[in-house]
Amino acid sequence: MTNPSTQIDLAANTIQEKLTFVLIHGAWATASFWDNTAAVLREAGHTVHAPEYAGHGNNIDPQVTHEQIVSSVVDYITQENIQDFVLVGHSFGGTVIAKVAEFVSDRVKRLVFFDAFVPKDGESLLDQMPAPVQQAFHGLIQASGNNTITLPFPLFRDTFVNRANLHLAKQIYEASPAEPAGPLLHKLDLKKFYSLQIPKSYLFLTEDIAYPPAPFAFHPGQSSNLGVYRLIVSDGDHISTAYTHANVLAQKLVEAGRD
Amino acid sequence: MTNPSTQIDLAANTIQEKLTFVLIHGAWATASFWDNTAAVLREAGHTVHAPEYAGHGNNIDPQVTHEQIVSSVVDYITQENIQDFVLVGHSFGGTVIAKVAEFVSDRVKRLVFFDAFVPKDGESLLDQMPAPVQQAFHGLIQASGNNTITLPFPLFRDTFVNRANLHLAKQIYEASPAEPAGPLLHKLDLKKFYSLQIPKSYLFLTEDIAYPPAPFAFHPGQSSNLGVYRLIVSDGDHISTAYTHANVLAQKLVEAGRD
Amino acid sequence: MTNPSTQIDLAANTIQEKLTFVLIHGAWATASFWDNTAAVLREAGHTVHAPEYAGHGNNIDPQVTHEQIVSSVVDYITQENIQDFVLVGHSFGGTVIAKVAEFVSDRVKRLVFFDAFVPKDGESLLDQMPAPVQQAFHGLIQASGNNTITLPFPLFRDTFVNRANLHLAKQIYEASPAEPAGPLLHKLDLKKFYSLQIPKSYLFLTEDIAYPPAPFAFHPGQSSNLGVYRLIVSDGDHISTAYTHANVLAQKLVEAGRD
Repeated sequence: MTNPSTQIDLAANTIQEKLTFVLIHGAWATASFWDNTAAVLREAGHTVHAPEYAGHGNNIDPQVTHEQIVSSVVDYITQENIQDFVLVGHSFGGTVIAKVAEFVSDRVKRLVFFDAFVPKDGESLLDQMPAPVQQAFHGLIQASGNNTITLPFPLFRDTFVNRANLHLAKQIYEASPAEPAGPLLHKLDLKKFYSLQIPKSYLFLTEDIAYPPAPFAFHPGQSSNLGVYRLIVSDGDHISTAYTHANVLAQKLVEAGRD
Repeated sequence: MTNPSTQIDLAANTIQEKLTFVLIHGAWATASFWDNTAAVLREAGHTVHAPEYAGHGNNIDPQVTHEQIVSSVVDYITQENIQDFVLVGHSFGGTVIAKVAEFVSDRVKRLVFFDAFVPKDGESLLDQMPAPVQQAFHGLIQASGNNTITLPFPLFRDTFVNRANLHLAKQIYEASPAEPAGPLLHKLDLKKFYSLQIPKSYLFLTEDIAYPPAPFAFHPGQSSNLGVYRLIVSDGDHISTAYTHANVLAQKLVEAGRD
Repeated sequence: MTNPSTQIDLAANTIQEKLTFVLIHGAWATASFWDNTAAVLREAGHTVHAPEYAGHGNNIDPQVTHEQIVSSVVDYITQENIQDFVLVGHSFGGTVIAKVAEFVSDRVKRLVFFDAFVPKDGESLLDQMPAPVQQAFHGLIQASGNNTITLPFPLFRDTFVNRANLHLAKQIYEASPAEPAGPLLHKLDLKKFYSLQIPKSYLFLTEDIAYPPAPFAFHPGQSSNLGVYRLIVSDGDHISTAYTHANVLAQKLVEAGRD
C-alpha cells in the first residue's frame, strides 16, 4: 500500500504456481475419494499425497482413536519429508489437519478446510451438530454393535450425494465403509492450533448440507471458527462433486491453497 | 456401506429417470407459470401435470379457502389416478403440497419445495413473515375492499422479478391476478405432514428475496423446517426465472425430484 | 395485476436501457478501481462518471472528513448537472452514497449498494464490525502515526483479493493507498436517507468476505438494513473481480441499476 500509480497487469493473474498437496479425506470415505481430483492436479503439474490414515481404508478398525489417525498422518509427512505443502482436510478431515498442523507447523504453508469441521477448543466433531443429530448418531452407534456408524442410505443419498443421480449415489454409498465412532466423539484440545500463524482457507460448496444448516451450513457455521481465512466458493455437494466435477474441485483447491 | 472396493462408474450418472410431476404454483400466479418449464420437461420425456386450483386462474374467487384449494388438487390427483409422482410446490404452493401430501401420501414419491413456504404446525404463511411485512399485508387486504392482496408494482418488480428487465417485469405483473387473502392467513394443522416419511427436497434460487432475508431467505429460513431434505441450488429470482430460464429450472426440478 | 391473459413476450427481456452511472469507490482504492468496468459500460452505450472524492486518489489527505467526501461528490454531480442517474457505492462508498442521496435525491433514479456498508442511523462503518475487528482497526490507526489505516498484506490478500493469484494480489495491494481513518469512524446521521423513497438495489458477490461473516456477510448482514431492495448476486471477491471480470461486473451493475 505504497504506490498508487502501480500498473495492474492482468496477465500476471494467469501465472500458475506449482503446489504440493497433502489431502486428508473425511468420514465414510477412503483415500480413493481424492483419486479423480489428484489426477487432475498432477496433470497440471502439482504434487499430490493422499495418504490413507489409521483405522481407515478398505479394512476399518472400529477402535481407532483420533490420536492414532493424527499420528499416522504426521508419520507419513515426516517419513516422506514433505515440505512447504498445502494441507487439505475434507469434512471430518478438518479435525485431523487441525491437530496435524500442531505437530508439523513448520512444514505447512497453508491449511485448507474443504467443507470441513473446525471445532472450537475442547469440542468434538459431534459437538458441532444440532442436538437431534447428536441423538441420532448415538442411536446409530448403539445399533452398530461395534462402535461404528453406518448412515442409512436415504439420509446419505439426500445430504451427502444430493447432486448425483440414484445410480451414482448407490455406487458411492456401497463403496463407503462404516465409520469408527470414537474419533467423531473425541473432544479435541485445539489450543495450540488456534495459536498457530499458518494461513487458512475455507472452500465451501453451496449445495453441501452434510452439515445441517440450522441455522448455518459449513460456511459460515464452521468456517467462522477460523477467524481470518480466505474464502473460495463453488457449487456442489459433500461427496459426489469430487467424482463428477474433479476438474472444478482441483481448480478450487488450487485457488484455496496457493500463496 | 458394505463394499469399499465397489468401482465408481461415472457414466451411470448420465442415466435419466423418467418422472411424473404435479406442479403447484404460488400466489399472484396461475398455472401458466409452469408453461415453459413443463414444455422442457415433457420434451425430455417426463410427464407433467400443472393443475389450476380452486379460486385461482384467470377468474379468482376472493373467498376461496385453503381447504378448497387442497381439495381441488387432491381431487385432480385421484380423478386422474396419478401415481408415484413428484409433488412440487412453489412459494405459497409449499403450504398446499404439505396438506395435499397428507391426503395422498401413498401416491407421492417425493415432495419438492421450490422457494416455498414450509410453515411450522399451527402457523400460516403470513406467520412466517417479519412483523413489518405482516402489517403491510394487512394494509393491502384492507385497501383491496374484497379480501385480496395486490402487490404494488415497485415491490413486485424488485423482489419477485428482480432478474428481469422492466419490460418483462411489467408483462409478468400485468398477468398476475390479485391473490385471495384467506389462504395466506390460514393457520395450518400440519401434524400429519410432519409425521409423513415421504422424502423431501428444497430447491433454492439464490436471488430469490420474495421471502425477506431478515435474517434468513427461503433457504435456510423455510427449508430448515423440513428436517432432513435434499438441497438443490441454482441462481434466479422468484418468478421471472421460470420464464427466462425454463431449461435450467426444468433440470433443477429433475435433480430435486428424482429418486 | 389486472389482466391475467397478458401474453408474456420473452424477447422484451433483451431490450437494453441506456443508463447514466455515478460510481463511488471504497476504501483503500482510487477511482481507477472502476476503470475496466466503466470501459465495458461505455462500450455498451451507458454514460459513466467515476469521480475521485475529497482526500482520496494518488495523494491522500489523512485529515479528510466524511462531510468533505460527501460534499465533493455532491459538487461534482451538480456542477456536471447529472440527472436521472444510478448512484453506485462500493464498500465504504455505501456510506457516501447514502449521504449524497440526501442532498441530490431528486436527481437519483436508483441507489446500488455493491458489497457496501449500509450503517443504521447514528452508526459508523466501523460500528458494523465485530468487536475484534474494531479493536484491530484501532490498533492499525495508532500504528500509522497519521490517523490512517494500512491493512497488513496477508489480511488484504485473503479477504479482499481472495480470488486473485499472488501476483495480481500484490499489484493491487501496492496500488492501494492508505485510508484516512476519520470517515470510517464517523457516526452517520442517516435519518433523512432512511426516509427517502429512492429505489435501492444490493449487488452481492458470494466470495466477498471483506465484511466478516460472523454471523453474516454483506448480504444479508448489511443489505437487510435497506428494507425493500432488489437483490443481484454473482460470484467474486471484494476487489479483484473488478479487475479480472469487469464484463460480468458491468452486466450485474446494469441488472442492479436499471428501472
